[in-house]
Amino acid sequence: MPPTVDLLLTNAIILTMDEKMTIFEPGAVAIQGDHIADLGPEAAMLEQFPDVERMDCGGKILMPGLINAHTHVPMTLLRGLADDLRLDVWLMGYMMPVEREFVSPEFVRLGTKLACAEMIRSGVTCFADMYYFEDDVAAATAEAGLRAVCGESILKFPTPDARDYEESLEYARGFIQRWKGHPLIVPSIAPHAPYTCTKEILQAASALAVEFDIPLQIHIAETAQEVETSRQEHDMPVVPYVKKQTIFNAKVLAAHCVHVDDGEIKTLKHHNAGVAHNPSSNLKLASGFAPISEMQSAELNVGIGTDGPASNNDLDMFEEMRLAAFIAKGHTGDPTALPATQALLMGTRLGARALHIGDITGSIQPGKRADLILVDIGRLHQTPRFRREPDSLYAQVIYAGHATDVTDVMVNGRWLMRQHQLLTLDESILQTEAAQYAQRIDQFLAGREQSVLSKLIAIGGATEEESYEVQSKVRLADPSSVIAALKTPGLEILHERHYHEFDTYFSFADPKQGHLRYREDEYIDKKGQVSNVRYRLTLVGPAREGSFASDVLLSRSRFIAPATHSLRFYREYFKPAKETIIEKDRRRWRVLFRGTEFYINLDEVKQPSLGYFLEIKSRTWSRRDAEHKAVLTRQLIEFLGAIPEETVSQDYVEIVEARH
Amino acid sequence: MPPTVDLLLTNAIILTMDEKMTIFEPGAVAIQGDHIADLGPEAAMLEQFPDVERMDCGGKILMPGLINAHTHVPMTLLRGLADDLRLDVWLMGYMMPVEREFVSPEFVRLGTKLACAEMIRSGVTCFADMYYFEDDVAAATAEAGLRAVCGESILKFPTPDARDYEESLEYARGFIQRWKGHPLIVPSIAPHAPYTCTKEILQAASALAVEFDIPLQIHIAETAQEVETSRQEHDMPVVPYVKKQTIFNAKVLAAHCVHVDDGEIKTLKHHNAGVAHNPSSNLKLASGFAPISEMQSAELNVGIGTDGPASNNDLDMFEEMRLAAFIAKGHTGDPTALPATQALLMGTRLGARALHIGDITGSIQPGKRADLILVDIGRLHQTPRFRREPDSLYAQVIYAGHATDVTDVMVNGRWLMRQHQLLTLDESILQTEAAQYAQRIDQFLAGREQSVLSKLIAIGGATEEESYEVQSKVRLADPSSVIAALKTPGLEILHERHYHEFDTYFSFADPKQGHLRYREDEYIDKKGQVSNVRYRLTLVGPAREGSFASDVLLSRSRFIAPATHSLRFYREYFKPAKETIIEKDRRRWRVLFRGTEFYINLDEVKQPSLGYFLEIKSRTWSRRDAEHKAVLTRQLIEFLGAIPEETVSQDYVEIVEARH
Repeated sequence: MPPTVDLLLTNAIILTMDEKMTIFEPGAVAIQGDHIADLGPEAAMLEQFPDVERMDCGGKILMPGLINAHTHVPMTLLRGLADDLRLDVWLMGYMMPVEREFVSPEFVRLGTKLACAEMIRSGVTCFADMYYFEDDVAAATAEAGLRAVCGESILKFPTPDARDYEESLEYARGFIQRWKGHPLIVPSIAPHAPYTCTKEILQAASALAVEFDIPLQIHIAETAQEVETSRQEHDMPVVPYVKKQTIFNAKVLAAHCVHVDDGEIKTLKHHNAGVAHNPSSNLKLASGFAPISEMQSAELNVGIGTDGPASNNDLDMFEEMRLAAFIAKGHTGDPTALPATQALLMGTRLGARALHIGDITGSIQPGKRADLILVDIGRLHQTPRFRREPDSLYAQVIYAGHATDVTDVMVNGRWLMRQHQLLTLDESILQTEAAQYAQRIDQFLAGREQSVLSKLIAIGGATEEESYEVQSKVRLADPSSVIAALKTPGLEILHERHYHEFDTYFSFADPKQGHLRYREDEYIDKKGQVSNVRYRLTLVGPAREGSFASDVLLSRSRFIAPATHSLRFYREYFKPAKETIIEKDRRRWRVLFRGTEFYINLDEVKQPSLGYFLEIKSRTWSRRDAEHKAVLTRQLIEFLGAIPEETVSQDYVEIVEARH
Repeated sequence: MPPTVDLLLTNAIILTMDEKMTIFEPGAVAIQGDHIADLGPEAAMLEQFPDVERMDCGGKILMPGLINAHTHVPMTLLRGLADDLRLDVWLMGYMMPVEREFVSPEFVRLGTKLACAEMIRSGVTCFADMYYFEDDVAAATAEAGLRAVCGESILKFPTPDARDYEESLEYARGFIQRWKGHPLIVPSIAPHAPYTCTKEILQAASALAVEFDIPLQIHIAETAQEVETSRQEHDMPVVPYVKKQTIFNAKVLAAHCVHVDDGEIKTLKHHNAGVAHNPSSNLKLASGFAPISEMQSAELNVGIGTDGPASNNDLDMFEEMRLAAFIAKGHTGDPTALPATQALLMGTRLGARALHIGDITGSIQPGKRADLILVDIGRLHQTPRFRREPDSLYAQVIYAGHATDVTDVMVNGRWLMRQHQLLTLDESILQTEAAQYAQRIDQFLAGREQSVLSKLIAIGGATEEESYEVQSKVRLADPSSVIAALKTPGLEILHERHYHEFDTYFSFADPKQGHLRYREDEYIDKKGQVSNVRYRLTLVGPAREGSFASDVLLSRSRFIAPATHSLRFYREYFKPAKETIIEKDRRRWRVLFRGTEFYINLDEVKQPSLGYFLEIKSRTWSRRDAEHKAVLTRQLIEFLGAIPEETVSQDYVEIVEARH
């Protein structure tokens, strides 16, 4: 006896994407509640289900909905915020500061709904997400009616939804308990990446995933740098390292896997890990070309993802599948690599398997959930259609199909879009609310960009530590008098150091911004060898606070911090108008002179060649103390055999800039 | 006094794409006849032109129409005909045979109109075409109202519109004379590529282009193979070679330039050649990554093209520009390479300059033709919009823009699309006619694919030359008796040869198709050295025509031809069910035995190891002659000391296949 069915979809070209890649033309699908009851050639189905409500698909393609295997849906609200930047500048200069400021449950719900609307429009019925406040991602997704594997992100840093990783894990446990068993949402845990998690986090996340039998999502080997660091720190590449942290005890969905070798691919396969391939993101951020052909040969379950819309900049799986096929060919030099059929499989059945939900979605088969879409192939850019080979239907979808060709979308037996009309979301409200967020974010960034100091603070580059110094600089014809005087008993040497300093000064169009100095400090040991290097970033304010006799200055506010990023990072982040490079040899003494501590710098500025300088510096905390030290400074200059009248009131960078 | 204007476009975000990258928001553009009269901030323009008809652009982006810098528009009718194939199989196995059969003025007009409709829909206002019957391409384009540089293709082979290149050149001259000075069409000449043209063609094409001061289009260095061949044949890479053929006397638009070095880029720049970069096509056919960053540094005019829709498979310039930005980053490993602003410039102003029509189109500036489009950035996948940096508008168009965001298109002051409605073309008629062509092409190819022989003939792989042979094969325990007998006076040796033969046999699911043999014949000279190699393709029919005593056979029809393609080509084109490889040593004598000419083959089958065989063969033309030769064959076998009862009636491939 045939099953009772609710709806018969007729007059469709059915790409089932099942194991045999069955195509029915014309075919019909019978829907019962949330699942597919039956399917087959139209004539047979009409006979089998004569009295069921019918919907004529108008000769369109009926296929499983697309699976977006990796994304960060709330980031729709950050789409187009910053482009054409290097990964670190983009991430640490823009994304993270804005996320710290704005990400909230409200932000996440709005961003998720916006993403769901866009994804429904482009034929996506299921996605894998990694973000914060994942409770709200799940709630907004369920409300929109889409299917998703929602992964709560855990990092070793504070996140918008947790002060530390213990709090994150606690949140994740509650989140999983709340959503486990939901008809649309599969809760998941997402330790962000091996390099942003500690071993403890990876192990705890894996244990939690095993405890609840839920998927674990993680970014793996996205950049060559990550692999390099893993080799240095753990003496092994990324996959063996996370394996050691018991990650593969869980059902893993590994995003990116751009830089994995054959052994790592084998490990992923052995543990039935799914891979999410993100062509646009890997190209746009120049992360590299994932070895997809090798993964295919190893029969890994590789899905395709858009990644977050801030690095793409959309959620268009048609474009993503096409790009997967294109770059596999371009990268291997083999135009037969990743043919259309395979690309569409990755966007559907293999994607669902990568998400570990291949039993319920990813193909049109009896018993699976009714997650399906209609694609109009009668439009201009799809004309004409060749019928010689059935496979050309896959090529048509992949090589000429556009997201806007999707006319109807059903998830779990429920229509989410009919004839291009969204049924569960109101786009205009979402757009209005998104515009308000964009305006606030624009204001926040505009404020930040008003000063170099606030940009520096925004990336955690400096705390607002100011220091005041009394300082004086004197030009020396010959440094020998200073060396000789230092050996006399008139002062006590407390400490002595020798450096080779390479300074890069950024100047800005507005001179009030001062200079930002990136200093590479080489310590020279007693044997004349470089024994250590440190990198420091200093913002040198432009204004002098005061001056005393003989150009003894009460100097600038300074903000000093270890330079944790590269010079290149700071260059691309701060976009200086000009750069000045100064190289000098510095001998430095901390001395006690007439009961007061001073620093004496004996500098030879080598590049550009400016000759010798004597600098006297002392920290100060009050105006009165500063006046006293200014007098002593002048005395110390004379004691060292230098001429106070030779005082130079400019910084080295100012001297160099003045020469041009 | 302000100019008289016909129309004022108001309330637009104007991306002028002029030298200063001026943006007006809100801005207005004044149109007069076919050109842009003026533009500026909306308020000022409204004041200046108070009484002019206005059109409110609804806050959309108003920008110059996109320039598709390289395509073959009539090939819309071949879109999706064959995908995921290697270039040679795709081109010589599918495109060229179908073009030989179908391309006509009618085909070209229909394909062009179909392409124009698709391009108008996606915001293209101008394109550069290379095809046949270019008179008809031009006529259909002018009728549709688009601007184009139309290049008549010249090849050294017969083409659909000319029996030889002299006829092509004559056609081209007439074509140029007819269209020179047309308001929309710039006629052009297109020697197809250095490797498909002779030196005479390149020189004559250049002379013609100079004579009429028109652009010359040519494919340059599309594949690494092309460069390799150029180095072998001309001792230099492609650009210097075409330079030597005086190509650069003309205004050149060079398509692809994937494999050009720094010197060649300099040459292109020196001669003000434009380059058409085709990201999708280069990826899909795995041609390589063009050195776009180097071309940018050299300040070459690089435009972006879709290439023909049979290798893309659409004419979507939004996708093409995005891909140009993506692969520049992915290929160089630098995410700051080819930023959005530059990609959009390549799709507009630089593209127009590459086509040598930068003076009339490519940007919104007073005096230029009114070629412009409206792009709706208020749609879901474009939400939200950040305003902090004006440049983010370019990123929005490039990274999130879709062809379907284009709502209105104007070319030469005439509206071709208003609110998504085409005004000059009827899509449904075009689609019906295209479907009819597709059906005929499907039938043609289906017929061709019915037999290996017809597929072979379709690619010019064999003329239908049949030959009949009387033949017998005997297994030998020891070849020495044959060698000894050959030295006796009972026969006269006319000719003697020694070969090493490597045979690859393709078998097909249907045994009636016979075997297709690819033979590599090494001639072994007297010193035992390989002195020459030839490649032959033989279709061995399955049916025996007759047999005589002692299994002397009247053998199969055979179709023999030099194998001009590689084994790999034939494998991918014929898709055999199975391959069998046989390697043998063959000594061959042509002898006169009892007044009749015979071939004697003494074979040692080495791989797989089958031992020694004696073959006797003689051509025959009649049944009576065959019967006579069958008797002589048996006598010759005995004469050579072999045992006629040891006769083997199978081919070597059949023996090998039978063993499995």
